[in-house]
Amino acid sequence: MRPASVREHNLGVALRLVADAPSPVSRAQIAARTGLTRATASTLVDALVQGGLVQEVALPPTSRSGRPAGGLVLAPGGPGGLGVEVHVDHVSTIVVDLAGTVVFHRLVADDLRRCSPRAAMSRVARAVCVALEAAAGQGVTVPGVAVALPGIVDAERGHLLLAPNLGWRDVDVLGLLRRDPRLAARRLAIGNEADYAALGELASGGPGGPRSFVHVSGEVGIGAGIVLAGRLFTGTRGWGGEIGHVAVDPAGPMCGCGARGCLEQYAGQHAVLRRAGLAEQPVGRGDEQWSGGQRVAQLLAERAASGDPAVTAALEAAAGALGTVLAGVVNVLDLETVVLGGTYADLAPWLVPGVERQLAERVLWSGWAPTTVRAATLGAASAVRGAASAVVSELLADPSGWLAVNPS
Amino acid sequence: MRPASVREHNLGVALRLVADAPSPVSRAQIAARTGLTRATASTLVDALVQGGLVQEVALPPTSRSGRPAGGLVLAPGGPGGLGVEVHVDHVSTIVVDLAGTVVFHRLVADDLRRCSPRAAMSRVARAVCVALEAAAGQGVTVPGVAVALPGIVDAERGHLLLAPNLGWRDVDVLGLLRRDPRLAARRLAIGNEADYAALGELASGGPGGPRSFVHVSGEVGIGAGIVLAGRLFTGTRGWGGEIGHVAVDPAGPMCGCGARGCLEQYAGQHAVLRRAGLAEQPVGRGDEQWSGGQRVAQLLAERAASGDPAVTAALEAAAGALGTVLAGVVNVLDLETVVLGGTYADLAPWLVPGVERQLAERVLWSGWAPTTVRAATLGAASAVRGAASAVVSELLADPSGWLAVNPS
Repeated sequence: MRPASVREHNLGVALRLVADAPSPVSRAQIAARTGLTRATASTLVDALVQGGLVQEVALPPTSRSGRPAGGLVLAPGGPGGLGVEVHVDHVSTIVVDLAGTVVFHRLVADDLRRCSPRAAMSRVARAVCVALEAAAGQGVTVPGVAVALPGIVDAERGHLLLAPNLGWRDVDVLGLLRRDPRLAARRLAIGNEADYAALGELASGGPGGPRSFVHVSGEVGIGAGIVLAGRLFTGTRGWGGEIGHVAVDPAGPMCGCGARGCLEQYAGQHAVLRRAGLAEQPVGRGDEQWSGGQRVAQLLAERAASGDPAVTAALEAAAGALGTVLAGVVNVLDLETVVLGGTYADLAPWLVPGVERQLAERVLWSGWAPTTVRAATLGAASAVRGAASAVVSELLADPSGWLAVNPS
Repeated sequence: MRPASVREHNLGVALRLVADAPSPVSRAQIAARTGLTRATASTLVDALVQGGLVQEVALPPTSRSGRPAGGLVLAPGGPGGLGVEVHVDHVSTIVVDLAGTVVFHRLVADDLRRCSPRAAMSRVARAVCVALEAAAGQGVTVPGVAVALPGIVDAERGHLLLAPNLGWRDVDVLGLLRRDPRLAARRLAIGNEADYAALGELASGGPGGPRSFVHVSGEVGIGAGIVLAGRLFTGTRGWGGEIGHVAVDPAGPMCGCGARGCLEQYAGQHAVLRRAGLAEQPVGRGDEQWSGGQRVAQLLAERAASGDPAVTAALEAAAGALGTVLAGVVNVLDLETVVLGGTYADLAPWLVPGVERQLAERVLWSGWAPTTVRAATLGAASAVRGAASAVVSELLADPSGWLAVNPS
C-alpha cells in the first residue's frame, strides 16, 4: 500500500474502534488495538477530532493515581447519512447521525405507479432537499445520499434496470435526480431496497446481533437481502435476492414477471388480500404516517388478532409458501437466521410458526441445527434506515474524503 | 504481518504467477508483477526451485541481443495432490501433479450402502494407499489427501454429519481413516463432493473459464457447488449447496429426507428411471471402469439417442424441475453460468434445452442478460478431480510448509 493509503486505512480502523466500542475508548487503547505507536495513533485521533468525527470526553477517575485519561466517542454534532426510499406507494427519507440515531424521518404517501420516472424523480429530489434542510437545521451535515429502489439496480451507472411493480425499465435515476440543481454536485448512490433493508437490520442489531442471515420483506413485491459474516451479499452483478420470483409451484398462478407460481403470487399482499376475501376493500391507501403496504399489514393484523378465519387462513398459506422458499434458500446458502422484515414484521405472530414448520421439515440439518426465525427490529423503515446507515458506514470505513474537505 | 508471514505470502504469490502463466515466466517478470526487488524475487525463486516446485527452462532467444533469459515453469516431477471420492456405489482416487495433469486414476465399484462406516472407511483407506504407492512409483510425492463425501460435512472436526443416501450420521471419517497406520500421520482433509466437483470444474476451466457459477451434479442424490468470483462458497458452516432438497412442488412425492416434493424426487436417477419405466431393469451396477450412476446415465443417453419416447419424456420432466430450482438459485444468487456436471453432463443434450427454457422464463433479468447453461468439462470425475486439485491449490497458495520439509 502507498503511505497515503496506509494512513487512510488506519484512520478508518481508528474511527471504527471508537464507533464499535460500547464505552469511551482511550488513545492508548487505540494504539494497542491497531498495533501503531502511541504517537501515530494520537496523530490519527487528532485528525478525527479536528474533523468533527470524534469527541474527547472526560473518563471517570480510576482507582490508580495519575492524570485522568480522556475518552473518545463519536461526535454528536458530526456528519450524518441520508437515506431515501422510493416505493410503489410512498417516498420516505431518514437522516441518521454517526451513531445511527435518527435525527429526521418523513414519509410522503404517493402512488408512483401513476407517474413517469421523470416526474417521480423530481418528487424524490424535492423530498431529499427537504430532508437536507431539516438536517442542516439540526447542525447535521450530510456528505452523501443513498437511494433505495424497488427493483434491479445497476449501481455503477446509477440506473434502475427493472422495477416490475412500478412498470419501469432502465431509468437513469441519478441523472434525473441531478436535474435538481441542489443535488447536481451531491454524492449520490443507489441500491436495491431489500439489500438496504438487510443492512438496516444488520446496523440495528449492533455487534451482538446476527451476522449471517436472510432478511425478507414483503408488500406487493417480495425482496430479500442476504448478509454473510456481517457483509451484504448481492451476487455477481448486484442483482441477487429476488426471492419474490422463486417458484413455489411451477404450475401455479401467473405472475406479473411472466412466469408461473412465483412466491409473490402466494405471499405478496395482493395474493393475501385476495385469499382473505379483502381484495375489494378500500385498503392500502397511504397517508402522512403510514405507507399503503403498512396500512394493509395493519388491517390484516387487526383481523387476524380478532380471529377472522379467512385472514388467518390466508396468512397461514402465505407463511407456508414463504417457509418453503426460505427453506430452499437456507439449504443452498447455509444461513443460521431468517429475519421477517418490512410489513412481515407486523404480521410475525401469524407468519413465524408456519415459516418455522417448513424450515424444520425441509432444511437438511434442522435436526441438530435448527434455523432461527425472528421478526425484524426495524419493520417497514428498515430499507430507508439501511440506506442512511450505508452512507455512515462508508464514512466510518474511510473518513479521509470527509477530513480533506472538513479539516477542522 | 510478521516478516516470516510476508515471506510465506510472497512465496505463494510467486508460485501462483508461475502456475497461472500460459508460457514460462522470467525472474524479472516475477519481480515486476510482485513489486519486489529483483534480488528478493530471485531468492524466492531459488527456494521454489530447490524445493522441487519450479523448474528453470531455456527461453527461445529473442531478437534483442544479450544473454538468454531463463524461464520458470512448474516442475513436472514435483509434489501432487490426491483426491478420493467416497460415493454410494464406488470409491475412486485420482492423483494430479502441480500442473493439474492426472497421473493416476482408479475407480472401484463398491456398494457402500451395505456396509458400516467403519468397514467402508477401511476400504477407502486401502484405496488411498494404493494410489499413494502408484504415485510414488511415478516419482510424485503427495503431501495431502482430500476426501470428497456425499453429505453434510464438518470439515474442522473431520466428521461426516449426515449422508442420507448412505444412511450414515455423524461418522468420524478422519478418525476412521487414521486407524490405518499408513495414514495416521498424513495430512488429510474432508469436504462435500459437490463442492469439490465445483472446484474441479473451476480448475479445469483455467483462468479463461467461468469464475461465478453453480455446478450441479446428480446421481441418486443431487448436489450443487457454488463458485463466486473464483472462490468456493459453502455458506456459514460449510453446509450449503443442498439443492437436491429444494422443493419443486411442496405437495409432491415424499423424499427420503422427510419432506415432500424435493428436487431429487424429480431429477434424481431413481425418479428418472421410474418415470422412464426402467426402474425394474438390472441397471446401475458399477464395474472397474464406470460407477453405477454413470452406467444409468449411459443407458438413459443411449435410449434417448435412439428416440425412446418414455426416456425422452422422463429427461424432459427432470430438466423442467432442475431448471425451475436453478432459476430460483440464479434469482437469489445472481450467477451468470449454470454448469451441468456429474452424470448430468452425459445427459446434457436432453437436459440443457429444458433447463434453458425455465431460466429464460423465470430469471428476472433473462431479457437482457440470459444465463449460460453448459455441460461440465469433467463429467462424473469432477469431484475426485476437484479434491485432488484442492490439495494442489493449497500447496500453490502457501508452499512454505512443503519447502520446510523439502528444502532441496
